[in-house]
Amino acid sequence: MTCEREVYLDYAAATPVDPAVVEAMLPYLTERFWNPSAPYARAREVRDDVERARGTVARLIGAQPDSIVFTAGATEANNLAFAAVDGHVVVDAIEHESVLACAGTHERRTVRVGTDGIVDPAAVARAIRPETELVSIELANGEIGTIQPVREMSRLVAAERTRRLEAGEKRPILLHSDASQAAGTLSVNVSSLGVDLLTLSAAKIYGPKQVGLLWASDDVRLRPLVYGGGQEAGVRSGTENVAGIVGFARALELACERRGEEARRLAGLRERLRAAIVSELPWAVVAGPRNAKRRLPGLLHVSFAGIEARRLVIALERVGVSVGTGSACAASRMRVSHVLEAIGMPRRLAEGSLRLTLGRGLNEADVDYAAAAIVRVVRAEMTRLGLDDATQAAHVAELMGTWR
Amino acid sequence: MTCEREVYLDYAAATPVDPAVVEAMLPYLTERFWNPSAPYARAREVRDDVERARGTVARLIGAQPDSIVFTAGATEANNLAFAAVDGHVVVDAIEHESVLACAGTHERRTVRVGTDGIVDPAAVARAIRPETELVSIELANGEIGTIQPVREMSRLVAAERTRRLEAGEKRPILLHSDASQAAGTLSVNVSSLGVDLLTLSAAKIYGPKQVGLLWASDDVRLRPLVYGGGQEAGVRSGTENVAGIVGFARALELACERRGEEARRLAGLRERLRAAIVSELPWAVVAGPRNAKRRLPGLLHVSFAGIEARRLVIALERVGVSVGTGSACAASRMRVSHVLEAIGMPRRLAEGSLRLTLGRGLNEADVDYAAAAIVRVVRAEMTRLGLDDATQAAHVAELMGTWR
Repeated sequence: MTCEREVYLDYAAATPVDPAVVEAMLPYLTERFWNPSAPYARAREVRDDVERARGTVARLIGAQPDSIVFTAGATEANNLAFAAVDGHVVVDAIEHESVLACAGTHERRTVRVGTDGIVDPAAVARAIRPETELVSIELANGEIGTIQPVREMSRLVAAERTRRLEAGEKRPILLHSDASQAAGTLSVNVSSLGVDLLTLSAAKIYGPKQVGLLWASDDVRLRPLVYGGGQEAGVRSGTENVAGIVGFARALELACERRGEEARRLAGLRERLRAAIVSELPWAVVAGPRNAKRRLPGLLHVSFAGIEARRLVIALERVGVSVGTGSACAASRMRVSHVLEAIGMPRRLAEGSLRLTLGRGLNEADVDYAAAAIVRVVRAEMTRLGLDDATQAAHVAELMGTWR
Repeated sequence: MTCEREVYLDYAAATPVDPAVVEAMLPYLTERFWNPSAPYARAREVRDDVERARGTVARLIGAQPDSIVFTAGATEANNLAFAAVDGHVVVDAIEHESVLACAGTHERRTVRVGTDGIVDPAAVARAIRPETELVSIELANGEIGTIQPVREMSRLVAAERTRRLEAGEKRPILLHSDASQAAGTLSVNVSSLGVDLLTLSAAKIYGPKQVGLLWASDDVRLRPLVYGGGQEAGVRSGTENVAGIVGFARALELACERRGEEARRLAGLRERLRAAIVSELPWAVVAGPRNAKRRLPGLLHVSFAGIEARRLVIALERVGVSVGTGSACAASRMRVSHVLEAIGMPRRLAEGSLRLTLGRGLNEADVDYAAAAIVRVVRAEMTRLGLDDATQAAHVAELMGTWR
């Protein structure tokens, strides 16, 4: 399949590994392949390289190196966070599937979100019970881009901690945040966020897949999910993914260096994409917070009422434009996303939703090409279905009346 | 540090990734980076590539593709196998630490091994109780090279299954084998082995670290260790390590193609290494089965009574020779290996043990260089300690009198 242009608009699902990251990783596959636990000098050098990578990551998130556990991705890190507690947990309804699945193994309260996806701190405060041990609120949602008020969550968890202390209750309460989707464009400093546990993924910041980490404050006692040789301070056994860990550290370094500029650039491209689509299709519905400070800069969630998103995906791939319809996990099962259900989006809108996420490889010409393609395939679907702009506008007005 | 020659003799701890495997992996880090769960054509191609890799691996081990779960390494695969049962388990005393650690989370019976490390099937038969649900016996031990009679274990597990059927007992019993150390030189066909669960590691066959698999027969209901997006048929959530999986399949293909020839070649090199050492140091003790058919072809475990192995490791690394002292996990804690304890090796011998494992990168000149270096550093230690061959021979004779 050759197209005039190839435009990838699904950076929230997967990022290519940055060439500098590949370069950092390669020696550890080939000439520096030694097992970091082996006793000879070459292997000890590799152990040092792993620890240097841990130190780099720690510095970039404002943490101590020994508080970082490298995992096989964000899903495992989220599972490790939840395995640290036995009791009641509080999550919000638009967390990543791995967080919701972990919450499902605990007594739990799932907090509703607003139509923009924002979790109300007051609702979380009401959901916390005396026996709550963990609150998990993602830093940014990967489907509609909502940035959550994690700092405020931290304050209310601290208040609950103070209340327990004064009441002589000994049960700890921890705040976890999955920052996988955020790390490319937002600061992930654990002190500023005020969290006790933080999940990061290399695969969303131009690092390798199946590499992630869980940071845990000194107050947290992590418990292993797998048992064995005792690597990662006994919390996560198995010979270290040396190349992956070194690559992750390099990827996070690059992300931090470029973060401010890249966030501004992506926000500009996202606005250009949005404007190009809604100027042609003014009845298209953009989800997520309107306030740019409350949403991921490189994410545009747009819904076309009454049009099947999967038909758009297929029409777009024919012209070289790759778009997602939600989280890739859900997409593979072609069901309406739990995120759109949770924000109350009417089904006729949800089924016509594209999640467009931007990244390093894109420029204005790419965005213009993609916008034109999206408008074209939506119009083709409208023609096939006998819809016009007026009927669409009326339909959307009716749907929006029932929603926000 | 530059030496006349660099000789790596710790292939059981880590293997370099084969250049052909790196070549197979690289596109999935860079241009084919798509998330296999995403809905567009490029991502579906990657999904197909993952499934093709699964098919390749399945064919090479004589299994069905849908019975293979890719994991982040052998440790996780072993944990997944044990998580499939709640009840009593039977293991032998020289299993890998991850198997022993998993067994530690169950009611269990640990079967002793002989001085050559061989697990007696009759002992396993005696250890099986009516409530036993899993027997786990590795195919080959990575420290002393013992190849276990897994096929015989399969027959006795089948006999117990028949007994239960006839007695109207419904409790299943499964046979698991960790074949991580075996796959490079032995057949790992699941039907020939007669196992229900098989663990493999890419990292021991010139594939990437933190990539492994668990094969499970149709009769086994696996239960997830981590929850999330539902990848790997719901058993192992998290975006797939596409590059790792493709690399693993390629590594296993190469291992299978070269297996017979490489096993013969390594057996020859191992014998050359053994002969060169014991001709100079006839009191050196070689552990593991004497029958070549019962031991890994590329492994030589040799013990120098009264000499500290870690001093040998350091002296050898100075002349470019990297050797292990046991499993890398244990080595990093510099304690006597549980394997040597289990075979009853006297402590004075165990503490002077080197595990020398050979692999693709080695030729006769490397082996000769390493043998000469080993003899030289052992002699230097003898001089330092005021030992000579006669006292050593007498010392060893005395120690052996208490052992085998």
